[in-house]
Amino acid sequence: MQPHPAPPVFAAVDWGTTSFRLRLVDARGEVVGERRSEQGMRALARDGYADVLAAHLAALGAPALPVAVCGMAGSREGWHEAPYVDVPASPGEILDHAVRVPAAALDVRILPGLAVRDPDRPDVMRGEETKLLGFLAGEGEADGLVCMPGTHTKWVRLAGGRVAGFATVMTGELFALLCEQSILRHAVAGQEGTGRPDAPDFLAGLARGLADPGGAVAALFALRARGLLLGAGGGETADRLSGLLIGAEVGGQLADGAARRVTLVASGRLAGLYARAIEAAGAEVRAIEADRAVLDGLTLAARRFWPEAFERRSA
Amino acid sequence: MQPHPAPPVFAAVDWGTTSFRLRLVDARGEVVGERRSEQGMRALARDGYADVLAAHLAALGAPALPVAVCGMAGSREGWHEAPYVDVPASPGEILDHAVRVPAAALDVRILPGLAVRDPDRPDVMRGEETKLLGFLAGEGEADGLVCMPGTHTKWVRLAGGRVAGFATVMTGELFALLCEQSILRHAVAGQEGTGRPDAPDFLAGLARGLADPGGAVAALFALRARGLLLGAGGGETADRLSGLLIGAEVGGQLADGAARRVTLVASGRLAGLYARAIEAAGAEVRAIEADRAVLDGLTLAARRFWPEAFERRSA
Repeated sequence: MQPHPAPPVFAAVDWGTTSFRLRLVDARGEVVGERRSEQGMRALARDGYADVLAAHLAALGAPALPVAVCGMAGSREGWHEAPYVDVPASPGEILDHAVRVPAAALDVRILPGLAVRDPDRPDVMRGEETKLLGFLAGEGEADGLVCMPGTHTKWVRLAGGRVAGFATVMTGELFALLCEQSILRHAVAGQEGTGRPDAPDFLAGLARGLADPGGAVAALFALRARGLLLGAGGGETADRLSGLLIGAEVGGQLADGAARRVTLVASGRLAGLYARAIEAAGAEVRAIEADRAVLDGLTLAARRFWPEAFERRSA
Repeated sequence: MQPHPAPPVFAAVDWGTTSFRLRLVDARGEVVGERRSEQGMRALARDGYADVLAAHLAALGAPALPVAVCGMAGSREGWHEAPYVDVPASPGEILDHAVRVPAAALDVRILPGLAVRDPDRPDVMRGEETKLLGFLAGEGEADGLVCMPGTHTKWVRLAGGRVAGFATVMTGELFALLCEQSILRHAVAGQEGTGRPDAPDFLAGLARGLADPGGAVAALFALRARGLLLGAGGGETADRLSGLLIGAEVGGQLADGAARRVTLVASGRLAGLYARAIEAAGAEVRAIEADRAVLDGLTLAARRFWPEAFERRSA
């Protein structure tokens, strides 16, 4: 039996474009300490990462732990580049390409992103690959389609336990741009939608998007006209736009019965909205909490990088 | 025979969101004077329109001419509202709903916009209806599909000489938002495309958009990845994005052989790009210069409002 709280064996860091999240993890893979900030890549110069990391570790009283990092810190514009690994790629192949930050005071390993080098359909991901590791390492389904919604939603095909390919759809970014910057901002009027998957306008937009994914762009202006001619409110318009875009995305990805089951790696509002959309498209949803998937992926990596730390602690 | 230059009989004003254009027109429908500025609706308060108009007329030495106006000056937020006329609508029905600005020192008539009140597909236009009047009044094709590209492209169905219906596609606005505000701005890198319909990247994007209009949104992120992985340049990316979006739009509108011939009312770069797209989709193009179409529409209106002015002058 271990005393509580158990001592941490490594720090798991998800270092994105606009956010930083560090979790201290014990030998059982449980979180025993956490820090978050907005010190993402966009806020940092290349020589700023080490100090930010050291300060957060010191604040948690764990200044010397090894650190596993995923996300944009590993991009060319980040702390230290961890070059993309081409798909198809297995979890082991991905981990083999983690890069140790040279000359750092700590043992910091950054996981690589993934790339599709097909000139007809090139694509990249950085950060999401770690969520895949997480659940491939767990109960792991070896084949099938995975949806990871976000600003840039990733649709990943798994085959034989490897990442076979993936495609990115900018639905989240498009939604924000249209609400805030386009002529539709007059119809949305600064209001947020309910974000609820059972909201009538979300469902109406969803049905439209699913029924005719190719017509979604051509259906956007009607949201403006609905406000002018029919007095639709801002929140209703936001819900309807959300449904339309998510419906078109999911309808396109699941066209022709592409999958009977989709693993949905998501959290918060998007989890509910995408689950509803995938079910409406006729597929079954297997839901995985995104924050947990990142942590599981980084823990899998840590067990590979520093096996002795886990053995020592769990002895 | 008239002396040259012939005296103007009315002022034709296209008053949009961001621009003002006034042309003095003689009894034969020819332009004998012109003024342009950026005094569009967005730059003006409701009580500013009369002074702007008077100043431009005075500068042309024609302070007392009657004025026919189309565009956003007739919107609720403009000078004086000319409420939307519901489709289907004939040229005569549209002109019957022109509104005279009350208490103005001049005789100013504002043409109404058009509305589709179908709750499944509501839509509005304001300004483009005048271009339709122009060519319906001319050699006029009574039936068929009309494409009027712009920030918000209008696709209009004509039947029996009336406007039967229309749909707006926000392709131009989407292109600008994606180039300037989205993650694709890194790939476009502030560069302009060639804007040429024979540019290889435009044609590659066009083929993709036409072949799979429903996949266009899902294909956007690949433009970012092309820059990262394949070193595509900013101008190439802009051309490819332009082709993709125009291809998806035209492919969607001409799906299932919707038209064998399209009347294209356009000017500048967009005229060439849309002509190429429509031809690639298998339809024939009948090209009409957009600036001329507006003028012809306003002249048709003026002949109806002030027939005696035309008779007197051409006598």
